[in-house]
Amino acid sequence: MFPPFTSIIQAIPATVPFVGPETLERRSGRQIELRLGANESPFGPSELAVAAMQAQANQAQFYGDPECYLLRSRLSDHLEIPLSHISVGAGIDELLAVCCRLFVSPGDSIVTSLGSYPTFEFGGVACGAQFLRVPYRDEAPDLDRLLEVVKSTQAKILYLANPDNPSGAFASADAIGELVGKLPPSCMLFLDEAYIDFAPEVPPIADDNPQVIRFRTFSKAHGLAGMRVGYVMTATSHVEALDKIRMHFGVNKLGQAGALASLDDAAHVANVVQQTNLGRIEIVHLMKSLGLRTLPSHTNFVTIDVESKTRAEKLLSLLLDQGVFIRKPGMPPLDGCIRVTIGHPEQRARFAEIFESVLPTL
Amino acid sequence: MFPPFTSIIQAIPATVPFVGPETLERRSGRQIELRLGANESPFGPSELAVAAMQAQANQAQFYGDPECYLLRSRLSDHLEIPLSHISVGAGIDELLAVCCRLFVSPGDSIVTSLGSYPTFEFGGVACGAQFLRVPYRDEAPDLDRLLEVVKSTQAKILYLANPDNPSGAFASADAIGELVGKLPPSCMLFLDEAYIDFAPEVPPIADDNPQVIRFRTFSKAHGLAGMRVGYVMTATSHVEALDKIRMHFGVNKLGQAGALASLDDAAHVANVVQQTNLGRIEIVHLMKSLGLRTLPSHTNFVTIDVESKTRAEKLLSLLLDQGVFIRKPGMPPLDGCIRVTIGHPEQRARFAEIFESVLPTL
Repeated sequence: MFPPFTSIIQAIPATVPFVGPETLERRSGRQIELRLGANESPFGPSELAVAAMQAQANQAQFYGDPECYLLRSRLSDHLEIPLSHISVGAGIDELLAVCCRLFVSPGDSIVTSLGSYPTFEFGGVACGAQFLRVPYRDEAPDLDRLLEVVKSTQAKILYLANPDNPSGAFASADAIGELVGKLPPSCMLFLDEAYIDFAPEVPPIADDNPQVIRFRTFSKAHGLAGMRVGYVMTATSHVEALDKIRMHFGVNKLGQAGALASLDDAAHVANVVQQTNLGRIEIVHLMKSLGLRTLPSHTNFVTIDVESKTRAEKLLSLLLDQGVFIRKPGMPPLDGCIRVTIGHPEQRARFAEIFESVLPTL
Repeated sequence: MFPPFTSIIQAIPATVPFVGPETLERRSGRQIELRLGANESPFGPSELAVAAMQAQANQAQFYGDPECYLLRSRLSDHLEIPLSHISVGAGIDELLAVCCRLFVSPGDSIVTSLGSYPTFEFGGVACGAQFLRVPYRDEAPDLDRLLEVVKSTQAKILYLANPDNPSGAFASADAIGELVGKLPPSCMLFLDEAYIDFAPEVPPIADDNPQVIRFRTFSKAHGLAGMRVGYVMTATSHVEALDKIRMHFGVNKLGQAGALASLDDAAHVANVVQQTNLGRIEIVHLMKSLGLRTLPSHTNFVTIDVESKTRAEKLLSLLLDQGVFIRKPGMPPLDGCIRVTIGHPEQRARFAEIFESVLPTL
């Protein structure tokens, strides 16, 4: 056949995982006033990060360090783990995709929660993986059932986002510890901790445990989503395996500089977390006053039950007409929910105003 | 076995494709004075690009447009081809790797020149490809032999860098046209045009020819290597296939802004090309005066014959001791050569000074 695409590529349906706000603006011809759909930090990057990136802009002709040595060294100090247990990539998305390729051959199984972070699936599907999706239980990843399915299918990877997106749920350190202890030896746990800075505790997992890869990012609490910097914490053998296939020059120079500077501004991240916690309470209170139920969130977003998929979709559309960009979970049982990023105080006030005006027309 | 890496990963030897100058500095404890090893532009980015990136640094909390719409639109105008024939990625490296995955199943053959751009091979090897490497003839890719091997092995991909790295050779528009015309229908031509801005002519290939993917970058003449922005020109069907597996949010926001602004500064790129041409003449003349032969170059580097691999390696080491970072081709027949990026006038003067002092000790 022509074009001579592989059978894996031919089997993947054409799809667009996320329609960006820029596209929504182009389609509607209307400016987005409140960009609250991608859990980008409303508090922006650290001023130190901005200054570091601006200072290096006229050095952009130079490739970034392929070993990300300064950033890995700083992370090593910050996390108190050896440098050899850290690999930096162009955001969690790239790291998830490349880590899938370490373990997944066509036909292998990957277990995840139905409706969890869709971009992970793109990396796995591109490897020819079979996906087994376990529905949420009590509006959170069902750890017991996930483990059962891993065992019954001899899955190569169990993917778990903790805190989870889009539910906002958090599995405790004890629950994660128990899960890790019960994993069959042939299965890797991909633990996506994009939102860990907002969590009440950090599960302690030995950083040299070769069954676990933890994924972290500068996109959320650090406010550097646009710069594409993430990292993994895992066994040295896996970092070395990643070196075989990762994009060696893939982490841009300004992103490395920004992330490095951001780690020096602990006060900024602490303030983001504190402001986010305040904002979460405010949104939960607003929704309660409007008779809407919110899901417990340990992230920088709140998931709100509006009782049906139809209503949720209509609400997104009504909000977009008013210049508000948010998203919604795509799969049951959460497809009757909407998900809103916790904005800064002015954004929250404006969101409340628009939301209250729109809700009666739903 | 544990770790449960795929058989493809297990078969890849541990290797480091490029040791970066930052690593060389760390190892030697000595600052690199002349960074002339990675063909980074000595003339830097356009001032417009620097300003655009600096202006957006405080917006780094927002993901870049996953469709790179503004950049693709501007490229569409610039190249006079439809938007649907363009896909943007995080540099040519990422695009090569992801394009390999469109066509290569384990065991499929890829044909390339022995000693050509090594990073391409990483993408192909990670797909489980068999590489067939055709030695240079007359110190340039051997188009006839490449085509013969493609036909005899039913190769899925023919990779050709034009202008070539590390030889600097350029195959004419006519030669490329002939090659494209003779390609068997089951084979894709990956035409890496990273250095095309320095070439005497641009081969005219129909941008909807589904057998060809052309790879372009902002890393060379545009001086934005650190920002990781490249693009492909190919048939709409391939752009759509890429959308299935590419990193949708992979091109950082500042890189998109910088590349866009750089396209508005044609004078900068023209000046870079002109200055590079002057510099090339100067280096060729210098080497001639020192009794060394240079290979014809249509790029921003010059490859210099120092007559043996041992001498070439020793020369690199001697130069590094003097703070000069350059590289050398790894494979015969060019492994007796060194490769030096054409610097700006002050760098060239300093390089000449150091080179002349070091050569007698070789």
